[in-house]
Amino acid sequence: MEGLPELAEGDELGAMIAASVAIGDGDVVVVSQKAVSKAEGRVRRLGEVRAGPRARRLAAELGKDPRLVELVLAESARVVRARGSVLICETHGGLVCANAGIDSSNIPGEDAVVLLPRDPDASARRLRAELRAACGIAPAVIVSDSFGRPWRLGQTEVAIGCAGLAPLDDWRGRPDREGRELSATAVAVADQIASAADLSRDKAAGVPAAIIRGLRRLVADDDGPGAAALLRPASEDLFR
Amino acid sequence: MEGLPELAEGDELGAMIAASVAIGDGDVVVVSQKAVSKAEGRVRRLGEVRAGPRARRLAAELGKDPRLVELVLAESARVVRARGSVLICETHGGLVCANAGIDSSNIPGEDAVVLLPRDPDASARRLRAELRAACGIAPAVIVSDSFGRPWRLGQTEVAIGCAGLAPLDDWRGRPDREGRELSATAVAVADQIASAADLSRDKAAGVPAAIIRGLRRLVADDDGPGAAALLRPASEDLFR
Repeated sequence: MEGLPELAEGDELGAMIAASVAIGDGDVVVVSQKAVSKAEGRVRRLGEVRAGPRARRLAAELGKDPRLVELVLAESARVVRARGSVLICETHGGLVCANAGIDSSNIPGEDAVVLLPRDPDASARRLRAELRAACGIAPAVIVSDSFGRPWRLGQTEVAIGCAGLAPLDDWRGRPDREGRELSATAVAVADQIASAADLSRDKAAGVPAAIIRGLRRLVADDDGPGAAALLRPASEDLFR
Repeated sequence: MEGLPELAEGDELGAMIAASVAIGDGDVVVVSQKAVSKAEGRVRRLGEVRAGPRARRLAAELGKDPRLVELVLAESARVVRARGSVLICETHGGLVCANAGIDSSNIPGEDAVVLLPRDPDASARRLRAELRAACGIAPAVIVSDSFGRPWRLGQTEVAIGCAGLAPLDDWRGRPDREGRELSATAVAVADQIASAADLSRDKAAGVPAAIIRGLRRLVADDDGPGAAALLRPASEDLFR
């Protein structure tokens, strides 16, 4: 789909997407986190932020803007790693990512930054309701953001929120072609769909959404557990 | 595409794929690691493995088969984590993954396991040459495997080898729509293509390859740097 005009707080993003592209039954609509955040008013100006002592100390260590670090800490339940110029945090919602997901590219205004949606699964449910109201069809919705990974270079898109989609496709217990039980093959399909959608997107063009077709088997009537189901509990995690 | 017959060492997998599907210019052919490994004879029988003292000790701690652990250690440059029943290793080729990528599903024979290809980028180059010989077109080739991730549940496919593809699409330095330089947006497109391909695949059906179209901008004449370019150097990594 084409770019939308610059988004602002209160914009009905779902209705805007529905007006710009034909949505079919069983489609998955993947919407960029930044568009969702802007429509939800999650933009902050660094000039209006006052950094506290912890943020100033950490910012000095990492060579970062103390006001940005103040926002990151406010968004974080814990700091997972702070080394070099990298600050990896666990957000209050349980996502682990650089700078608690705060981003400063593609924002008008020199000192504006964009926070993650407060509850990305709720954002996905709301977008789905807007799409249903606008076009009479409830596609699955993914709110997608690009995260770095340990061990590997480059970012990939992950689903930080979703509605109407089974985020994990669990093959455990189903037989393989030899009749043996498949082990350890729960597939993070929501993340894979977010990645597939990104391949069609021009990062500089401000296109906020992509449609993925052919995955009706993963699309459900009810909103389902959301992307929260993809969060590995801290107690079972070996890397925080 | 449909399933192929059970693969064995010496099978010309590229020619078999070319015979089963029409390949076009600019296509990306994503081939499952397991198919590549079988064709390369990377199958081992646990009954023929003798576990040494280190493997026996670690296996007892983790509740694993000592012969499997022996194979994992032989494939590994270092153990990154060993806790609960999880053994995460860095392979000699620099991949960080559970059990050094050794897998035991979808293999005929009760005690057979499949190792990763010795050099997955070389495997991708060889497959590409076979495809070029068989159909006169050299598509990009990805050798794909499913890895777990820290922090998130479920597996996603990653490119462990590739040829004829720019594995990282680097947006750094290009301007965003406000004319500011985009930061930290090198996209791991090879991994995202591997994930996209997986959405079309039935894990139990033994389908070894999928074709991704529409990404000609990422396909190159020369084989390029391979998926080795996606490996984060250990010295820059915060999680090993």
